[in-house]
Amino acid sequence: MYFASDNSSGAAPEIMAALAAANAGYAMPYGNDPIMERVRARIRDLFEAPEAAVYLVSTGTTANALALAILAQPWQAVFCHRLAHVEQDECGAPEFYTGGAKLLLIDGPDAKITPAALRDTVTATAQGGVHNIQRGPVTITNATEAGTVYSAAEVAALCAVAREFGLPVHMDGARFANALVADGSTPAEMTWKAGVDVLSFGGTKNGCLGVEAVVIFDPAKAWEFELRRKRGGHLFSKHRYLSAQMDAYLEGDLWLDLARRANDAAQALSQGILGLPGARLMHPTQANAVFAGWPRGGHRAAQEAGAKYYLWPFGQSLDGPGDAVLTARLVCSWSTTAEDVARFVAAVRGA
Amino acid sequence: MYFASDNSSGAAPEIMAALAAANAGYAMPYGNDPIMERVRARIRDLFEAPEAAVYLVSTGTTANALALAILAQPWQAVFCHRLAHVEQDECGAPEFYTGGAKLLLIDGPDAKITPAALRDTVTATAQGGVHNIQRGPVTITNATEAGTVYSAAEVAALCAVAREFGLPVHMDGARFANALVADGSTPAEMTWKAGVDVLSFGGTKNGCLGVEAVVIFDPAKAWEFELRRKRGGHLFSKHRYLSAQMDAYLEGDLWLDLARRANDAAQALSQGILGLPGARLMHPTQANAVFAGWPRGGHRAAQEAGAKYYLWPFGQSLDGPGDAVLTARLVCSWSTTAEDVARFVAAVRGA
Amino acid sequence: MYFASDNSSGAAPEIMAALAAANAGYAMPYGNDPIMERVRARIRDLFEAPEAAVYLVSTGTTANALALAILAQPWQAVFCHRLAHVEQDECGAPEFYTGGAKLLLIDGPDAKITPAALRDTVTATAQGGVHNIQRGPVTITNATEAGTVYSAAEVAALCAVAREFGLPVHMDGARFANALVADGSTPAEMTWKAGVDVLSFGGTKNGCLGVEAVVIFDPAKAWEFELRRKRGGHLFSKHRYLSAQMDAYLEGDLWLDLARRANDAAQALSQGILGLPGARLMHPTQANAVFAGWPRGGHRAAQEAGAKYYLWPFGQSLDGPGDAVLTARLVCSWSTTAEDVARFVAAVRGA
Amino acid sequence: MYFASDNSSGAAPEIMAALAAANAGYAMPYGNDPIMERVRARIRDLFEAPEAAVYLVSTGTTANALALAILAQPWQAVFCHRLAHVEQDECGAPEFYTGGAKLLLIDGPDAKITPAALRDTVTATAQGGVHNIQRGPVTITNATEAGTVYSAAEVAALCAVAREFGLPVHMDGARFANALVADGSTPAEMTWKAGVDVLSFGGTKNGCLGVEAVVIFDPAKAWEFELRRKRGGHLFSKHRYLSAQMDAYLEGDLWLDLARRANDAAQALSQGILGLPGARLMHPTQANAVFAGWPRGGHRAAQEAGAKYYLWPFGQSLDGPGDAVLTARLVCSWSTTAEDVARFVAAVRGA
Repeated sequence: MYFASDNSSGAAPEIMAALAAANAGYAMPYGNDPIMERVRARIRDLFEAPEAAVYLVSTGTTANALALAILAQPWQAVFCHRLAHVEQDECGAPEFYTGGAKLLLIDGPDAKITPAALRDTVTATAQGGVHNIQRGPVTITNATEAGTVYSAAEVAALCAVAREFGLPVHMDGARFANALVADGSTPAEMTWKAGVDVLSFGGTKNGCLGVEAVVIFDPAKAWEFELRRKRGGHLFSKHRYLSAQMDAYLEGDLWLDLARRANDAAQALSQGILGLPGARLMHPTQANAVFAGWPRGGHRAAQEAGAKYYLWPFGQSLDGPGDAVLTARLVCSWSTTAEDVARFVAAVRGA
Repeated sequence: MYFASDNSSGAAPEIMAALAAANAGYAMPYGNDPIMERVRARIRDLFEAPEAAVYLVSTGTTANALALAILAQPWQAVFCHRLAHVEQDECGAPEFYTGGAKLLLIDGPDAKITPAALRDTVTATAQGGVHNIQRGPVTITNATEAGTVYSAAEVAALCAVAREFGLPVHMDGARFANALVADGSTPAEMTWKAGVDVLSFGGTKNGCLGVEAVVIFDPAKAWEFELRRKRGGHLFSKHRYLSAQMDAYLEGDLWLDLARRANDAAQALSQGILGLPGARLMHPTQANAVFAGWPRGGHRAAQEAGAKYYLWPFGQSLDGPGDAVLTARLVCSWSTTAEDVARFVAAVRGA
Repeated sequence: MYFASDNSSGAAPEIMAALAAANAGYAMPYGNDPIMERVRARIRDLFEAPEAAVYLVSTGTTANALALAILAQPWQAVFCHRLAHVEQDECGAPEFYTGGAKLLLIDGPDAKITPAALRDTVTATAQGGVHNIQRGPVTITNATEAGTVYSAAEVAALCAVAREFGLPVHMDGARFANALVADGSTPAEMTWKAGVDVLSFGGTKNGCLGVEAVVIFDPAKAWEFELRRKRGGHLFSKHRYLSAQMDAYLEGDLWLDLARRANDAAQALSQGILGLPGARLMHPTQANAVFAGWPRGGHRAAQEAGAKYYLWPFGQSLDGPGDAVLTARLVCSWSTTAEDVARFVAAVRGA
Repeated sequence: MYFASDNSSGAAPEIMAALAAANAGYAMPYGNDPIMERVRARIRDLFEAPEAAVYLVSTGTTANALALAILAQPWQAVFCHRLAHVEQDECGAPEFYTGGAKLLLIDGPDAKITPAALRDTVTATAQGGVHNIQRGPVTITNATEAGTVYSAAEVAALCAVAREFGLPVHMDGARFANALVADGSTPAEMTWKAGVDVLSFGGTKNGCLGVEAVVIFDPAKAWEFELRRKRGGHLFSKHRYLSAQMDAYLEGDLWLDLARRANDAAQALSQGILGLPGARLMHPTQANAVFAGWPRGGHRAAQEAGAKYYLWPFGQSLDGPGDAVLTARLVCSWSTTAEDVARFVAAVRGA
């Protein structure tokens, strides 16, 4: 009953096995290992993007910050949702890597940006010429921080607005697999066919130890990316251990299977919670996280039964009348079992 | 016969086993895993430094750059040897993380700084007041990029000069284990007892997959380090996989055993090469790398036999008369075998 | 009838005379000129702050950015009003000089921050520990970008909130003289006695050619300021020309006289406009700028009569029915005459 | 007898008069004043460069740092002489504005880079690929920090080397007028015709209060320059006071006349010193500075007579035997008189 975060789960056995296999013998360092060649080919195939530049890094914050650094000049804005990970949870990594670009925040329900809101914000930016921060890239998180998903069509609509203004688009896909499984679109449809220029393609939260790919559909900035990665300390010498993770992740659609398990668990959990007296969802459950509220008594019961999760937003207290509704974030992962879900719902219900 | 780099070798089986063991179940992310608590305790014990702040990152460049960032202001100098990794091989990571500090280079034989040279360079710096880069930290690499080692007493002599000017000292210990084994001093003697403030304590080159500890002996800047690490994208969510490597590395003095194997192999290799006609050492062999020259014919023979290593410095050509001496760098690792060494020497001799 | 900006007016004759006088002979460069000694003494007297560090720079953006750079770490927030000059009009200079700090925006009527809004925003910041931007300095603009003024008591109330959280306070006083004249408080009451740590003390907009003082009430960071100023290219070699401006500005309360003229002109203009049919103020007129709306026909008449000012916000059109209300910003300066005001009002009324 | 620095002299009367004239009435701010239009046209004419982008800033450090910032990426080297102002006297401004580029130092007599030394240093850079700082712009100082001058042909030879490697060239012309007068070439011959891409065109040291032009011969990066200038706090609101200085500086070849006076004074001073017993030059006197040594007794006599100058390098002492030779830097300016020179030489001789 561990719903605190998808990064508290372990790595899938297939990933661990690949790591062990990759350990044999000597290998060229710094991304020149043969496994990386295979990873590059796999991702290009998967995304129908034979020219794409593909790099591996070890954290999602790094993938996002480096991707934005090749898209945004220091005097430009990065347009993002107010709840985006780049704004909320990276201690200013985008500002650090871009040399001080300014994140301009857009509101919107369920942590999603609407095309109209994007257009309004971009239009209002840089009206004062040289005195103002200039327009820069748009970054979209999919699946979102609220457990919701942009369809490929919604992504395309946002990219169309960006294109009106000549702005590039980044997708923070720390949970890209979860979004794709939810939407049913192909990797290409969800990214470059919709107009995405650079993708942070997550592995860590979805069953790897620590690996994210950055997929740059137009390779013109590939060398700049390599230099920024090195300069940021993110070029692994024993790179084969990143390669092996990503290789196994993609083998036989493991990545989609793992995401499907997580999404299915979240659906079951969401349904279970909705069946509880006094319960309600804060956001629709579309990927692997459930944002829901139910009476405080049920929270106390769940926690006594050993469930791990965060009240969300922070600052709510378990002390007080049992029928007051508290809200929570519950995150499922590839390793969440049907039994975990059932036990959790039963514990809350038993309150 | 793989002598190209110690980062081309794999991970020791004990490390791989620890990684597999750490994979079970859920764990708190971001360094709050229980293995990290043990690592912290181990390192404090090992260094006789109960107050030290201990953090893990995944690359040596990161360890160095973050360490320097908490020691150097953007308008300060970092004093280092001209051949230091921070100057030569990090694509400006120290400049990036410090916000533009200037590396001031000191020459010295065998990639080592002498106290006199350090004093001269520091004295000559910032004579012009606000117009000049100000004096900042000293960074020492041990073992050096030339395969030589500073004794604990030599480190203390350099730190004494730094202290005269009120400057902090960083040690780049990407090959700290190799230096320690060579010198026979304790971890404490080689670091804080000699006057070192912050240590990059390497694991990657010496049998891990990718982990370095940063040991900050005065914890006043620990929180700043944590923020800089996060902001740099170097805080692992599934941190247990870093912890597990370092934990196994320290268990039962594995780290020293691995370094001893590498150093011993280098000694054997050095002796073997010196026994060859026309051979000479460029630097004394004190750690796990051999810098030596021998006739070109021997290089051709070695490479035909499958040996992997770099001519050093770059730019020498295998084409030409066989008796002209070419120089090379040969790096041994924990996994270099006596047979590798013997085969290599035999191949060269057979030329 | 030039109301476009106070930086379109020239320099007061007393300032020009001082500049000419300062030109005689040789002078020590870089702030070591004897006039600067006198300026330092004058400002310390004026602010009853004998320990204050005092520096001159040539633009308001520089004064603000350097002041914030000594108060904010790169991973910290700068709390400011959404309409603050540092957010709206400096092309990211604060981000550049701080190394990427994040401006967190606070809304509030008439471009003023309320203590409650400040407390809410600060409280909501950095709840997630190392993952978040940390709390940093508060910056207050006085007079504001909306032509309003914080009283010394209002400043003190904001500083009290900042102090609850241990945060330093900067005041952007590009129009400090206008605020002081409006409020009737002393320089000390408006700044350090209220809790302000660093002041950007403007001269440029109020009758100088280009000079701003930065007054650092606690001189602990004075040397850091000097290094950052030099590194930013803002240390003048022929510094006497900055010193002379500021010296004359302070002599005989010229600075207050100039501001009084501007404020009085704005009051007269505000009253005149309010007497027009269909006119209204967008903000109370407290300093030297009037934000007002009146029918489009009046705008057309004013512009035909040669009046210079901006429709505010941007994006309104002079084309259309004459009775629709358009809003404008009209800025008075020390050189605005009663006749300018009368002619302007007459022109609008004549429409 | 003021030979400490050319930035200790005042402004030429023509410049002061232009400043006073420019003060009348209102003017558009931020470089949109009509005088700036004239300045732009003048500089384009003078340099036979009708497409050049022309901007004004107030200090030489700023001109250099902004120029390098549009030429160098953060991960690139800036190739310069070891004694260059950008390396020695700007407290890291180039590092700050470029985001951490690394200055790679080239030695050479009389503060001049030779084509061979440049080629050697460039060739040795970035041999290690992504691990290394990459090659970036070359910056040449003319006149140099040693009072010597590159001829237009020498500049062309250096630019030819830069072009071999595809590197852009910047000229630090803080004393451009002095170099031009010495060499007899045209502005175009000394810059773009020789291969210079961006020029820092100094006014401050040569009779202005504080103004430098940045001339960008290929305007592709003009907008980036404008944004960087604003972001650095270097866009003057009351810009007419910069424009007026530069306008008067160029009017009727005033700039060349002023430089000629300074160079002539330096020649006279150099000849006078060489006529003294025991005197010698450290560098040939080609522009407006004399680097010379003579017996200590003569230094004591000069200083007693009120002469101001620096012993150079720092660290020599006036105390000791009178016949030991001490070396000095003596800088002449537009305002140095023949009488100053004669009195100085007489004072030394009288010792």
